[in-house]
Amino acid sequence: MQAKVRLYIDHPLGEGQTVPLSRDQAHYLFGVMRLGEGAQVALFNGRDGEWRAEVVEAGKKAGTLECRERTRPLQMPPDLWLLFAPIKKQRTDFIVEKAAEMGAACICPVQTDFTNSERVRTDRLQAHAVEAAEQCGGTYVSEVTDMQKLDRLLADWPEDRQLMFCDEALAEPSSVLPSLFAGEKGREDRRDAPWAILIGPEGGFSEPERDRLRGLSFAHPVSLGPRILRADTAAVAALTLWQLTLGDWR
Amino acid sequence: MQAKVRLYIDHPLGEGQTVPLSRDQAHYLFGVMRLGEGAQVALFNGRDGEWRAEVVEAGKKAGTLECRERTRPLQMPPDLWLLFAPIKKQRTDFIVEKAAEMGAACICPVQTDFTNSERVRTDRLQAHAVEAAEQCGGTYVSEVTDMQKLDRLLADWPEDRQLMFCDEALAEPSSVLPSLFAGEKGREDRRDAPWAILIGPEGGFSEPERDRLRGLSFAHPVSLGPRILRADTAAVAALTLWQLTLGDWR
Repeated sequence: MQAKVRLYIDHPLGEGQTVPLSRDQAHYLFGVMRLGEGAQVALFNGRDGEWRAEVVEAGKKAGTLECRERTRPLQMPPDLWLLFAPIKKQRTDFIVEKAAEMGAACICPVQTDFTNSERVRTDRLQAHAVEAAEQCGGTYVSEVTDMQKLDRLLADWPEDRQLMFCDEALAEPSSVLPSLFAGEKGREDRRDAPWAILIGPEGGFSEPERDRLRGLSFAHPVSLGPRILRADTAAVAALTLWQLTLGDWR
Repeated sequence: MQAKVRLYIDHPLGEGQTVPLSRDQAHYLFGVMRLGEGAQVALFNGRDGEWRAEVVEAGKKAGTLECRERTRPLQMPPDLWLLFAPIKKQRTDFIVEKAAEMGAACICPVQTDFTNSERVRTDRLQAHAVEAAEQCGGTYVSEVTDMQKLDRLLADWPEDRQLMFCDEALAEPSSVLPSLFAGEKGREDRRDAPWAILIGPEGGFSEPERDRLRGLSFAHPVSLGPRILRADTAAVAALTLWQLTLGDWR
């Protein structure tokens, strides 16, 4: 029997493992989704793959599931970070949802010179990433980090991580596929490297930021076609380009 | 002087051409954006490229601009249709906005077996496409057609148009880049052909639809990676894939 509901749960999953439900989860499964005892639910916790579990106790405020069978192994996304400058609330939510669907392991809001948004609620964005994982069938949940300043992040940059930097000032069709993606050789070398993608804010990068980014040995500017893309569109397009050439769409 | 406002206007544009403003446009330019006589505005009409125009008369309910200089030629997008099954209002708006930004010449809502939405307001969606063109710096406005039934559209399909059909049932990493994109030869043959991309509804295609699509000589199934994408994400990802391999990002 196919489970109709797919739920993220922060609890160990394994053969015969019982899983207690929180009040919210019980309300969702038994109140909203109208499941009863014996119903099947697909569970994942981001660590133990996906499990088919059965409802063994269904109450108004609590309940218990029991794991029956592992239906999918844990599938880790590539080691890819998405760095983006938060914009309007709805579009920021959208970027997080899309980055999670597109398989970014880590989603990092960054504060740039032209970022208007001074604060983001990490817990709310993390909830969007969980919902996206439930929806897209992933067995892994992307991690949303607290907002960091771009200059500090670049100063502490991990030595071996490459950075694909989407530069709207490069908006020429000819520079879309940068040299690093071009040859088989260059591709092979960078396939197992950890990566990050940086999407600029709505107003673009400041000149000092752009100069700094261009001077970094691990930073590779790419252009996303001849039209200017909004930041949320750019995030999906850049993730597609990366997944196609270096990630798990290959 | 760089124009701060970029406006679509349904009026001929050319050397010395005067352009009368509607009440809404006058309100936007002079009330909201606080422009006065002598201010510069970038205009495009989807046909004559982009023009720098000057405000020569500014009133509360009317006004006149005069074209000074063509700043960009008309740049047509590739002959690409995006066919999609309308979903929730906000996500439908989003698909239209994104398809326009990503350079689909024509955006076609289609009714599939599993489409919930029976009606869409074409005029509202067209307004989103205009806004996206204003925003993304395009000189062309994508056309939004009235909703059509998928089976009728396929029955009347233009002979030479290829169809990229995003099939979630193909969700295997290995089938992402279909054979038609693989060799230089196949690519060259199809570069100048007109194309369409079909994104399925949230519930996927029905079995009869999928069978029919698979039997069509002009239809090419592609998979968009190992995760299930929402329809709006799939639209951006599919457009990126197409633009990179066959369109104007090459």
